[in-house]
Amino acid sequence: MSSGHESAVSPLAPDEFPALPPVAGVKLSTHAAGLRYKGRADLMLAVVPEGTTVAGTLTKSLCPSAPVDWCRSILPSGTGRALVVNAGNANAFTGKAGETAARLTADVIAEALGVDPHEVYLASTGVIGESMPEGALATELPNLLDGLVDADAGSWEAAANAIRTTDTFAKGASATAGEYTVVGFAKGSGMIAPDMATMLGFVFTDAPMSADVAQALIGGAVEQSFNRITVDSDTSTSDTVLLFATGAAGGDPITAMDDPRIEALQAALDEVNLDLAHQIVRDGEGATKFVEVTVTGAESDDAAKIVALAIANSPLVKTAVAASDANWGRIVMAIGKAGQRADRDKVAIWIGDEQVAEAGLQLDTYSEERATEHMVGAHVVLRSDLGIGSGAATVWTCDLTHGYIDINAGYRS
Amino acid sequence: MSSGHESAVSPLAPDEFPALPPVAGVKLSTHAAGLRYKGRADLMLAVVPEGTTVAGTLTKSLCPSAPVDWCRSILPSGTGRALVVNAGNANAFTGKAGETAARLTADVIAEALGVDPHEVYLASTGVIGESMPEGALATELPNLLDGLVDADAGSWEAAANAIRTTDTFAKGASATAGEYTVVGFAKGSGMIAPDMATMLGFVFTDAPMSADVAQALIGGAVEQSFNRITVDSDTSTSDTVLLFATGAAGGDPITAMDDPRIEALQAALDEVNLDLAHQIVRDGEGATKFVEVTVTGAESDDAAKIVALAIANSPLVKTAVAASDANWGRIVMAIGKAGQRADRDKVAIWIGDEQVAEAGLQLDTYSEERATEHMVGAHVVLRSDLGIGSGAATVWTCDLTHGYIDINAGYRS
Repeated sequence: MSSGHESAVSPLAPDEFPALPPVAGVKLSTHAAGLRYKGRADLMLAVVPEGTTVAGTLTKSLCPSAPVDWCRSILPSGTGRALVVNAGNANAFTGKAGETAARLTADVIAEALGVDPHEVYLASTGVIGESMPEGALATELPNLLDGLVDADAGSWEAAANAIRTTDTFAKGASATAGEYTVVGFAKGSGMIAPDMATMLGFVFTDAPMSADVAQALIGGAVEQSFNRITVDSDTSTSDTVLLFATGAAGGDPITAMDDPRIEALQAALDEVNLDLAHQIVRDGEGATKFVEVTVTGAESDDAAKIVALAIANSPLVKTAVAASDANWGRIVMAIGKAGQRADRDKVAIWIGDEQVAEAGLQLDTYSEERATEHMVGAHVVLRSDLGIGSGAATVWTCDLTHGYIDINAGYRS
Repeated sequence: MSSGHESAVSPLAPDEFPALPPVAGVKLSTHAAGLRYKGRADLMLAVVPEGTTVAGTLTKSLCPSAPVDWCRSILPSGTGRALVVNAGNANAFTGKAGETAARLTADVIAEALGVDPHEVYLASTGVIGESMPEGALATELPNLLDGLVDADAGSWEAAANAIRTTDTFAKGASATAGEYTVVGFAKGSGMIAPDMATMLGFVFTDAPMSADVAQALIGGAVEQSFNRITVDSDTSTSDTVLLFATGAAGGDPITAMDDPRIEALQAALDEVNLDLAHQIVRDGEGATKFVEVTVTGAESDDAAKIVALAIANSPLVKTAVAASDANWGRIVMAIGKAGQRADRDKVAIWIGDEQVAEAGLQLDTYSEERATEHMVGAHVVLRSDLGIGSGAATVWTCDLTHGYIDINAGYRS
């Protein structure tokens, strides 16, 4: 196998990686182990203090990777001391050897840190079905301990870079909630769909909280963010979002959802997760446009989300967006195929601010020129109202272009 | 709007249109009305004798076209005298005006033939959301009556050509069942997915049968054919399959499924429908490979079909096939995301005759070279055994290539 896919930075990328603030108690390290990629870090370690609460969300794939199995087995403890991530090999569909490699990774790091292996969380991303090189892992993992530094702007960016695979830029975000700080970084650009995406997302806060509260907070944030993005409708074996709450900022632990600090913390977590989710869409393989799909007037919020995802996942809608073609018939098609209650004669459609159709009919006032003007831009908004209820949802996707084919017909070569 | 998309004939096309035999009682006509396409026939009329039984299957889209609504309203009669199809305009999402245009079409043809409008079946295919030009319809439809000829090799081919939109070749098939003949023609190449596809399929037989028997026969044939193909997972507003049984070959009407003639008739209908379905996949937009996806060992046949469609619809699997890349990890991903019972440690995978994996692990004997040799061909077979039951299903799709993007980012321009 040669090096990973090299491609130009997405045209939708942010100008620069954000300057992420420290989170008290978090230490980071990266290492270029050369397991797959050459000349770049491909291993990442985060170490958190004793008493850190951990919660998370894992892929719903029925063929999960060995690291996902491992995380699922240790998450019920609600605590943790470390996170190890490798990029290049997903350690998925690798059978017993995969389990062994995952356990080896936890053991090596646990021994070096003097903690229990069941306190070491794992994530792997990359090619599926190739065995992890156990010998190299055993040799290279200890190198991660040498470079451990306090989390700061530089080390966050290095960590975000070390977990990239086909990503064309590193993804980070932060927010504050009163005295507390929330920082996250993520990777993902293809095999992206709820629930969840081929994405890894790691969020750290210095707020003190119980495992139940941490799970409720991260669960809520994921539902509003990573579970509402799609690049290609493909769900990975490895999707993982973890929240580490060190409690190092002090204060009494938050143990109930009616704690007055919850609202700000949920808002901060939502902001960080949504920012990261949007960055993943902006790095969608081959993406040239960021697409926001809103459905209102559905029977329920869930129905609205299903219809919105049917629009966002439609290859015909996505190719029309790529071509800046205001082909709104394809939106009608997607609404029709979503399987949720809809009445053709009540549907209204907008492209940007231009209303296309009302009550199942193109408006006399509709200007394809104005709709096209909107679609030529890099941020396309498609809105539909089903006219039968008050359910609403917004999801995000990107267009489907030649770039997607280029990247995915050549990923392993 | 300019003329329809022009592209080279699919590399997977049959060498030539088959020489279809006559079906007693069926008359055909085509006409170049210039409603959208220039220089080619875009209207098609089939006329069948009094007493002809009609049955069919219509799109499950909740935003169906006006012709689909019309057919749904008249199908319960189980009889019919004519079929009118236009290509270029789907008459979908056209509100009251669409209903009016559909009714006008039935009225004009009914009057010319001296039959009831409720005996005239309609299908439209093309762009969604544009009004049908009622004036032109009223003027042009009567021209169809002039050219009516008995169905034969030439008129079948003309009819199959007149209903094409983005199709790069006309699609026809035939089979015999004892003394009876079955002939069908179809169109479709994108917006193809169960249930059903953006496809129109019309099947004619001279066998005599009741409406119940006709419905059972065509329903069974569609489930084994058109409901098992996918090009891009998109379902159209206009999907229609109709069976016309003229009874002109004589004999007592078949009124029960235990009639001794049923077995051969079902086999003939299955053969014709599957042949047409495969031709649609072979004309999949941008297709360079015909892909057969088989799943065995599933909990049930339904589960096997869901998993097979998850594989067949995965953009990552389809781009890997396009690249002749034996990236079987993407098959694992698709099995995992399908949501059906699967146990990673029991899954076996084959690419062509080359077994890749067994019990959730790549085999030592696996040769990527041999797998790639198979994938380079134009007929790719992907097989998975889930190892947990006896459910099995095969579905068919094509690869996802730059050609798909080219066609769909330019369809209306």
